[in-house]
Amino acid sequence: MLSRPDVAVIGAGPVGLAIAWRCAARGLRVAVHDPAPGSGASHVAAGMLAPVAEAYFGERELTGLLTASAARWPAFAAELTEAAGADVGHRTEGTLVVGLTGDDLAEARRLWAYQQRLGLPVTPLRPSQLRDREPALAPRLRGGALAATDHQVDPRRLVPALRTAAERAGAVVVPGLVTRLSDVDAGTVVVAAGCGAAALAGLPVRPVKGQVLRLRAPGGGGPGFRHVIRGYADGERVYLVPRDSGEVVVGATEEERSDTTVVAGAVLRLLRAAVDLVPELAEYDLVETLAGLRPGTPDNAPILGPLPGRPGVIAATGHHRHGIVLTPVTADLVAGLIVDGVADPLLAPFRPDRFGTEENTWN
Amino acid sequence: MLSRPDVAVIGAGPVGLAIAWRCAARGLRVAVHDPAPGSGASHVAAGMLAPVAEAYFGERELTGLLTASAARWPAFAAELTEAAGADVGHRTEGTLVVGLTGDDLAEARRLWAYQQRLGLPVTPLRPSQLRDREPALAPRLRGGALAATDHQVDPRRLVPALRTAAERAGAVVVPGLVTRLSDVDAGTVVVAAGCGAAALAGLPVRPVKGQVLRLRAPGGGGPGFRHVIRGYADGERVYLVPRDSGEVVVGATEEERSDTTVVAGAVLRLLRAAVDLVPELAEYDLVETLAGLRPGTPDNAPILGPLPGRPGVIAATGHHRHGIVLTPVTADLVAGLIVDGVADPLLAPFRPDRFGTEENTWN
Repeated sequence: MLSRPDVAVIGAGPVGLAIAWRCAARGLRVAVHDPAPGSGASHVAAGMLAPVAEAYFGERELTGLLTASAARWPAFAAELTEAAGADVGHRTEGTLVVGLTGDDLAEARRLWAYQQRLGLPVTPLRPSQLRDREPALAPRLRGGALAATDHQVDPRRLVPALRTAAERAGAVVVPGLVTRLSDVDAGTVVVAAGCGAAALAGLPVRPVKGQVLRLRAPGGGGPGFRHVIRGYADGERVYLVPRDSGEVVVGATEEERSDTTVVAGAVLRLLRAAVDLVPELAEYDLVETLAGLRPGTPDNAPILGPLPGRPGVIAATGHHRHGIVLTPVTADLVAGLIVDGVADPLLAPFRPDRFGTEENTWN
Repeated sequence: MLSRPDVAVIGAGPVGLAIAWRCAARGLRVAVHDPAPGSGASHVAAGMLAPVAEAYFGERELTGLLTASAARWPAFAAELTEAAGADVGHRTEGTLVVGLTGDDLAEARRLWAYQQRLGLPVTPLRPSQLRDREPALAPRLRGGALAATDHQVDPRRLVPALRTAAERAGAVVVPGLVTRLSDVDAGTVVVAAGCGAAALAGLPVRPVKGQVLRLRAPGGGGPGFRHVIRGYADGERVYLVPRDSGEVVVGATEEERSDTTVVAGAVLRLLRAAVDLVPELAEYDLVETLAGLRPGTPDNAPILGPLPGRPGVIAATGHHRHGIVLTPVTADLVAGLIVDGVADPLLAPFRPDRFGTEENTWN
């Protein structure tokens, strides 16, 4: 245990650990509090680094942050691999976004046009071009697009690597649940507790349930495709993330619920959409079904920066679907706030005080 | 440990334990050998007692045995409940067999006509009559039938109850795998080892893989239907077995494979068929996916009786899909063979020597 650390981070998910790593590497004494490091949303997450495919209408500022963070990922992954001595499954084959039916393709095209207007690199492909890139795709797909800069990382490798890197830099992971901010005594307290930020700091973070499957290629080989595949299949949105290990992550529902049960209908819809897009997945082992809770916010964007009326407390939560991709930029900017006292302009749209000061307007 | 027991049973599934119970209750000293009692096919089985719905073309002798055993079930369940002091989930609401599409119904009707020619109690019902009995059934079902005497039991309650009853009667369960018959020294050796009978005794038993799901009604209540429901849904055969606990067993594939992996396509087909027949199942939790290996035989019928050329060795295996329903009759007849030396005429069609004496003709 540290006697009064410079920084106490509440939450040992990717965001909390990366902040701890950055601060410890800058010479601060850092404690990270978590009853079960890496057991939250990151345990369920697929690990897509997809600022392009995740650029949705009306989320322009979020798209800017996603893009900035994704651009940091190659260097971040390399530095982390070096610091931790562990591979984090960073892969750069890019993402294919596909539409199964004419309606699916029409919906996708509307979004690609918007993404192109933002200057994002999304390249429409004909069915034959899709199948040239990934012969495993269903022949009846009506079309798709390549988002070449949308990559992936393996969250289940990322978390232990970040912990190792943070600990090697001098941070201490303290087991145990923090239920009140006042229970932690440190120069700066960082709330990186995902959904727990609501109870801890009154922030407008709510759980958004996501159900996810993990398949495994039969026979011990790798999956029969290399790109991340995202798509619309008869109106159902699904993603397929292949790993070198043979694992394919299939996700995900988005539900305004706070339970983590796996429900038959969700599994049915995910499997049907997955097999519609990549028929060979029917032959894959189903090795895991689980659900996690994303920390959602009123505007789907994270909450980053000093808490109004709480000197010395900084929020780094509410990352919703984007916790993995936003890990590098969150860590860099929050460490900059703490160590240098400098608020990067990138942070401005994500300040905690944007929801107003009345706590009851947040919930 | 017993010094040279009268009877050594190899295999502590329902069949082996019930034989042990019957023999011990008749005063014999009985040992049951199994490395993991109740971990075989019975752990996966749904526990339907369905001689009518399982009466298929060309299996008339098997149908006779199934009917005889099902008739013994009410008394067997009552006696076992008394002996073990444990409920085994015996339920007598009957079975509804349904057809989703016109083609499904046509296929089902052909079988019902055959079953009626055998004098079996199967009563066709119109869609409105089906829904009167089970409002949870899909409105678009084209028709069905009631097999009122096809009941159910819970195999996961049955096995521990049988073990308790056998032990209370004096039988001893010996942990450990028997790999050769000659390793067991007893007056009579009973091979009740399921698929293990092939390696142990050269019997023509092969694994038939079955994948099964377990759902659970949300909110802690019971399922929204009481009958066992079996059906054809767009050519897919599925059964749904509701338990008081809220569990619904959904099964099952039949595959000529010896692995026990759970495969995405099988889960997809089972879930789709289940939700097609009973839409509310989409809202149920998916709590378990697993696969087991049924002990199949060349003619789908069990192998019951003295092994040719092996004095003192009796087979009680090869029960394929019917191990649970056939447990009472198997136990009674095999105990009769051992204790009284009497071969019931019911056994005649199931003698081990029916496959010929050349081992290579069995495999």
